[in-house]
Amino acid sequence: MAEFDFIERIRGKLQAHSPNRRLLVAPGDDAAELKGFAHGMLFAADLLMDGTHFRLAEQGAAAAGRKALAVNLSDVAAMAGTAVAVTVSLALPRQGADSLADEVIEGMLPLARDFDVAIAGGDTNTWDGRLVISVAIVGAPHRKGSLTRSGTRPGDRILVTGALGGSLQGRHLTFKPRLKEAAVLRDRYDLSAMIDLSDGLASDLRHILKESGGRGARLLKAEIPIHADALTGGGKDPLERAMTDGEDFELCFTAPPAEAAKIAREQPFGSLCPIRIIGSVSENPGLLWDDDSEITWRGFVHDFA
Amino acid sequence: MAEFDFIERIRGKLQAHSPNRRLLVAPGDDAAELKGFAHGMLFAADLLMDGTHFRLAEQGAAAAGRKALAVNLSDVAAMAGTAVAVTVSLALPRQGADSLADEVIEGMLPLARDFDVAIAGGDTNTWDGRLVISVAIVGAPHRKGSLTRSGTRPGDRILVTGALGGSLQGRHLTFKPRLKEAAVLRDRYDLSAMIDLSDGLASDLRHILKESGGRGARLLKAEIPIHADALTGGGKDPLERAMTDGEDFELCFTAPPAEAAKIAREQPFGSLCPIRIIGSVSENPGLLWDDDSEITWRGFVHDFA
Repeated sequence: MAEFDFIERIRGKLQAHSPNRRLLVAPGDDAAELKGFAHGMLFAADLLMDGTHFRLAEQGAAAAGRKALAVNLSDVAAMAGTAVAVTVSLALPRQGADSLADEVIEGMLPLARDFDVAIAGGDTNTWDGRLVISVAIVGAPHRKGSLTRSGTRPGDRILVTGALGGSLQGRHLTFKPRLKEAAVLRDRYDLSAMIDLSDGLASDLRHILKESGGRGARLLKAEIPIHADALTGGGKDPLERAMTDGEDFELCFTAPPAEAAKIAREQPFGSLCPIRIIGSVSENPGLLWDDDSEITWRGFVHDFA
Repeated sequence: MAEFDFIERIRGKLQAHSPNRRLLVAPGDDAAELKGFAHGMLFAADLLMDGTHFRLAEQGAAAAGRKALAVNLSDVAAMAGTAVAVTVSLALPRQGADSLADEVIEGMLPLARDFDVAIAGGDTNTWDGRLVISVAIVGAPHRKGSLTRSGTRPGDRILVTGALGGSLQGRHLTFKPRLKEAAVLRDRYDLSAMIDLSDGLASDLRHILKESGGRGARLLKAEIPIHADALTGGGKDPLERAMTDGEDFELCFTAPPAEAAKIAREQPFGSLCPIRIIGSVSENPGLLWDDDSEITWRGFVHDFA
């Protein structure tokens, strides 16, 4: 069960849950936004499990800790916000619990420093199960307001940062969350929606389209940016990998045509973070290639235990 | 490894972690307090595991979900704050994952409504491990400021709400977090420190004493409020159970002598939540009974798998 499905399932319950009027952006986006903290506040969480999101024995606790922080930062990036602080809760295997906990935190510190994020507390317990790292993050919204998943309109162009696919070869542990890029994009351009690519473009783009009133999209097959990591290994086609591997943690966003063209022309981050127009939003549901064939791929399912 | 030990271990790292200047109350209290959200913001987290904090097969997912929310509310209560919103992250056993997730949330809703707490989002994944429920909470500090663990002074009296011991017979799943009581106490009286009793008075009181500059305490053996649940079952002495069973989620707080006497006399909550003076803070470390014998008991270790 993916995060999105769960929120879908309980959305009715939460809409009927009267204290949810405290929220400016409701569950189902990359972060909720709370009312009443002067300029609002972002609040999100991600939980990572050994065997599913990382492999402790091979990759170590520091890499897992770094990733747990990075995916939370990516949620704040996807709202164009600024990260402020995290809590870190751990379920630790009894064997070597103390040093595991230390390594998880040590793996987070450099990234936390780079993005000026406080580690505000958390909770640890040992058990006979595997390592679980649960991080919650609070952040400040962009002064122009958060970029949600629900603002895209038919005709808007779809853009992505970076290149996609093959992240599980290593990038999922080392990626740099696009916090600064998202804030700059929000500052300088008129964007309509944004999401971070965690489950793969084929899934995550559908979230934007669905949340924006049930739209569809037509994608330019030749414009999907395929990462070099997607060219090697696995029997799958590189394009399919770029669309479905997931864990890219790049940004996918939409903008009106003239604005999108301006972004693509200006390339505000140069070759450090290339941006490509990969398609456009259509009135009616359905994900199509530019040759009118249907895109039936779905994104990554977190399970390589 | 208890929460407190872990924070102790990493406290040095966190003090050297420059973004932690964002915090008004640092890790090691019931909640951190963030600067810069108009009137500040409380931020805490607790993670509960099947077999350790609850038994899924016997008690069900709704009771576990309720408890996960309640212990987080109790952390905000211990700062005298108001709860605002939570995120809920779940590691779900594959078998019946969807209905388990639903039950966890359903178990939380009545309590969330009672305390006007929004459910802002979260994350779910399935695995072949046991159920983990990780909740993070944000709250608003009391207008007079948060009540931390570090403000008690020699001569202050030590007070507790309710009665202690035997919580694992059922109260740990059904207790009502002392949010309203804590706020009223902070409103009306001059208190110096507060903590919620999660690991047992013998442990949690030591946290206040340690954080307040390495103080000690002398406790009145006859005044420790023993819960009826601590009188039955187990080979342990009821007094020992009241001091060490843990999971009471009552408040332990300190106040100057005249103020403490006033609280004990006024009993602001009547018989719904009796308050007792159980001892006083001494200059030097060490936990003693009023007959000068040393209290060597330590609190509860979360492990009944």
